[in-house]
Amino acid sequence: MGRKRRMGMFRDVSRIVIVGGVASGPKVAARARRLMPDAEITIIERGRFISYAGCGMPFYIAGQVKDFNQLFTTPYGVIRDEQFFARVKGVRVLTRTEARVIDRQKKEVVVTNLETGENYALPYDKLVLATGSNPVIPPIPGLELKGVHRLNHPEDALKIVEDLEGVSEAVIIGAGLIGMEAVDALRKRKVFVSVVEIKDQVLPGVLDPELAAVLAARLEEQGVELHLGEKVLRLGGDEEGRVSRVVTDRGTLEAQLVIVAVGVRPNVELARAAGLEIGKTGAISVNEYLQTSDPDIYALGDCVENVHLISGDKVYIPLASTANRQGRVVGDNLAGIPSRFKGVLGTAVLKVLGFNIARTGLGEFQARELGYDVETVVNATRDWAHYYPGHDNLLIKLIVDRATRRLLGAQAMGGGEAVKRIDVAATVLYFGGTVDDLASVDLGYAPPFSTPIDAVQHAANTLRNKLSGLAKTITAHELKARMDAGEDLVLLDVRMPAQFNAKYIEDERVMLVPLNELRQRIEEVPRDKEVVVLCAMGTRAWEAQRILEGAGYTNVKFLEGGLQAWPCELD
Amino acid sequence: MGRKRRMGMFRDVSRIVIVGGVASGPKVAARARRLMPDAEITIIERGRFISYAGCGMPFYIAGQVKDFNQLFTTPYGVIRDEQFFARVKGVRVLTRTEARVIDRQKKEVVVTNLETGENYALPYDKLVLATGSNPVIPPIPGLELKGVHRLNHPEDALKIVEDLEGVSEAVIIGAGLIGMEAVDALRKRKVFVSVVEIKDQVLPGVLDPELAAVLAARLEEQGVELHLGEKVLRLGGDEEGRVSRVVTDRGTLEAQLVIVAVGVRPNVELARAAGLEIGKTGAISVNEYLQTSDPDIYALGDCVENVHLISGDKVYIPLASTANRQGRVVGDNLAGIPSRFKGVLGTAVLKVLGFNIARTGLGEFQARELGYDVETVVNATRDWAHYYPGHDNLLIKLIVDRATRRLLGAQAMGGGEAVKRIDVAATVLYFGGTVDDLASVDLGYAPPFSTPIDAVQHAANTLRNKLSGLAKTITAHELKARMDAGEDLVLLDVRMPAQFNAKYIEDERVMLVPLNELRQRIEEVPRDKEVVVLCAMGTRAWEAQRILEGAGYTNVKFLEGGLQAWPCELD
Repeated sequence: MGRKRRMGMFRDVSRIVIVGGVASGPKVAARARRLMPDAEITIIERGRFISYAGCGMPFYIAGQVKDFNQLFTTPYGVIRDEQFFARVKGVRVLTRTEARVIDRQKKEVVVTNLETGENYALPYDKLVLATGSNPVIPPIPGLELKGVHRLNHPEDALKIVEDLEGVSEAVIIGAGLIGMEAVDALRKRKVFVSVVEIKDQVLPGVLDPELAAVLAARLEEQGVELHLGEKVLRLGGDEEGRVSRVVTDRGTLEAQLVIVAVGVRPNVELARAAGLEIGKTGAISVNEYLQTSDPDIYALGDCVENVHLISGDKVYIPLASTANRQGRVVGDNLAGIPSRFKGVLGTAVLKVLGFNIARTGLGEFQARELGYDVETVVNATRDWAHYYPGHDNLLIKLIVDRATRRLLGAQAMGGGEAVKRIDVAATVLYFGGTVDDLASVDLGYAPPFSTPIDAVQHAANTLRNKLSGLAKTITAHELKARMDAGEDLVLLDVRMPAQFNAKYIEDERVMLVPLNELRQRIEEVPRDKEVVVLCAMGTRAWEAQRILEGAGYTNVKFLEGGLQAWPCELD
Repeated sequence: MGRKRRMGMFRDVSRIVIVGGVASGPKVAARARRLMPDAEITIIERGRFISYAGCGMPFYIAGQVKDFNQLFTTPYGVIRDEQFFARVKGVRVLTRTEARVIDRQKKEVVVTNLETGENYALPYDKLVLATGSNPVIPPIPGLELKGVHRLNHPEDALKIVEDLEGVSEAVIIGAGLIGMEAVDALRKRKVFVSVVEIKDQVLPGVLDPELAAVLAARLEEQGVELHLGEKVLRLGGDEEGRVSRVVTDRGTLEAQLVIVAVGVRPNVELARAAGLEIGKTGAISVNEYLQTSDPDIYALGDCVENVHLISGDKVYIPLASTANRQGRVVGDNLAGIPSRFKGVLGTAVLKVLGFNIARTGLGEFQARELGYDVETVVNATRDWAHYYPGHDNLLIKLIVDRATRRLLGAQAMGGGEAVKRIDVAATVLYFGGTVDDLASVDLGYAPPFSTPIDAVQHAANTLRNKLSGLAKTITAHELKARMDAGEDLVLLDVRMPAQFNAKYIEDERVMLVPLNELRQRIEEVPRDKEVVVLCAMGTRAWEAQRILEGAGYTNVKFLEGGLQAWPCELD
């Protein structure tokens, strides 16, 4: 580190070329410019739009974002176009310009002006690949029909909104993040929505199956028709060439509009053709400085793979938050400030029909596949004090390694504030903390915000009770399977009679003894059968388990997450 | 650890006596019961009520909690009284019973039944002190007048509500947490409120002065009259013995109702008389197992001091969240499961007139007093995507140690979601993490919840820019002082003209050059003067600082937190 560096005068790379102008590219440019006033910075973008809020598209379709331009403007209302980048950032932006070839020997990028067809070479000292991702196009006949859309680019959102006029029934293919946001958007436009998902749950890879099942039940209650484990074979059209039906391996769905949202894949053609290393995930391989196998070429955002901080594996999880964080890192490295990107946790959050959904770290099955000796809990709570207006429910799942008690992952879902809890869990994961750490952090409490023991810490405590062997639980999934198999269980519901009468599991194995009568009426509970205690959220059932065990019962469990975790409608 | 333990049969202490039935006492009892089915557990409580939501009292006064009983019931509507504890928890509760003397030799507590006057001794194997705190009674004549209240116990809330009939003007003495919650409650009841605080800021010890000044300005905008740095001398009454005025060292305030909220002190008389060690803070001294100097006597909650996890010092920060977390620890230790309470971070959160306020760790001045080489930032952001409806503003202050870059404290305030950010910061503090860690956690992003770089990470990045010497800032406080001193500065406002015209600092040193014209019009900015760049939140001003420096300007700063941090009303 020489004298210039110490004086805050960073080494100016004279020519920086950035391929890709959507999210991470402009972020790199802005950061690099602030560090290097004299560098010559050029962004090349194939499309018409740059630096836009891709994540905002569903909310434009929903009508929550009224003005499309808002997605292309700064918070203070200035449009983020070529002129903006030139005037404010001192960055040259070439839109409708495609990078064709990287000549690593000559250190230049051959580009084509898509308007004029002109080809020319842009020399670089450092090159940045922010080429993003492309939607996966499933091999289904009929994708060319009118009314069939994707939801990846601003043009897609505009086309969908134009096309929604008169549409009453839509089919969304794919129940991932984008598919779920599309559900939310179309329901807000009063369109009847069916979702076809080839996997047997909603949000595969995001939520574990038992939370996904609860979400599915809630979506169906709100009129969303789910076709899970169902494969789309083809799309059919009417005489005008407009889509009219989706044919699956199980039937035919009417549709006036179809959104195909089956995921994205990294855009790596340019990198591959240039001989840069592509990782096992299919995305560009980068080191922790976000350099590709050519040290003069950086890559970031949706086109690269990242290290998963828990597993240590390379993963492909394209997210705008990662792209933005990486932008700062690449900008620093371009300016000669060594800066590392440690990795990701796969934190993802979304809002669907009033449900807040959040996840971080490993899912249960991922964790098992990686060889962890996994313990989990599903815990139900309110997000804040029950007497303070507006509180709502939360289901939180935690996943830990039994041996080390290390937290491996967390998921939260409900009308309540799920994201806050997952952000805390993500922070614990970042530091490699245990479930005991999660339970011990001094989190903020006041009735409008939380309970004295916060929801995520309540979940941690329940899991600690399980780990110590004190709490014995059964998941809703397992209980349902055992009930369906006709097992001879006692389902002891310990809620108040009024609560019970409002909603219960209709089954002859269910008996009601409210918790406040249990000590007195304990002999009514059979001693010779396995007892599963039920309540609304699990708290009373846990108490009842300990009361029964205190009275000598030896085969007692309680339903984790209570009836809030029950994946079916209750009677 | 013997054979019994390994089999999950915990050593049953036969007799556990718990002094105090409000928050931590019942929590200990419940946890101990779940671990020790056969223990004899007794709670002694001086008052009539037990296990109530003390933190909910302001919301009852506000009318947000409609039914007073809600503060005494479980979430499922069962009243938490003696019968509840007997029937559900198997715990004996003696209300209206006061512990007089601890006889450590005989291992018994002498108690008085306050209804009958009867005295008797309760033998214990383990004793738990959960004696809580008492309000500080300031030495002011007139406290005995009708209409003068405290806000510490349920009876206080009931009395205030009864007494509010016809009250149009109230004075709150003390601008701490309880005082501020009282402001919120009374404003919701349309009462005109004045606050008298002896210190020169609101929320002393909670917020640093610059954030407190912004809060004060906002409270005043909403009609709250603040008398800071003002000392109450006496209360005056009318001929009926009802309070009618508050006389301070600066004047007289009309008042039909007064709430005295000048803090609490730990209730340690019983412990002191028993010869238990009292710490320097005046609260009971406990080890990390929450044992007092007598290993058979535990203490927790508002009557004990705790280790501050950042400073390592003993501190007295009585909070319900701490009390509840400690309850589990004491319950475990009573059952022979060694369990430690690591300490606190002083995390505190509250809601006042739509403002969310949260803090954790050390304040700036605390940190300086402890000898840290402190760097700070005040950063303004939106809490989520600017195009998603309902977003609101946040001011976040971070405090770090320059040498180690370790995070020392964080404060957040605004209409936006402040608590989430402070919970994340608290988690970083718990692990001893740095500002770089805070910036690197993979937090959840979707437009309804955050920005691609979350507000707290944006603040961390700004602070990292300051630490590296890139960002040069001035706080609103300092700028105001230098302006008031008549210094010859250029105040370069770089907002859009429409924004500027709506609200600006009226001062002849202010000049307007919108950011998107700055590169073109740069020569209009004097080179021979110190330039302070202003914008709404600080983002554009930071960009402008770098543009000016890139053009050779050598004495440029920007206003931290922008005009959002400005502590005065703008014209």
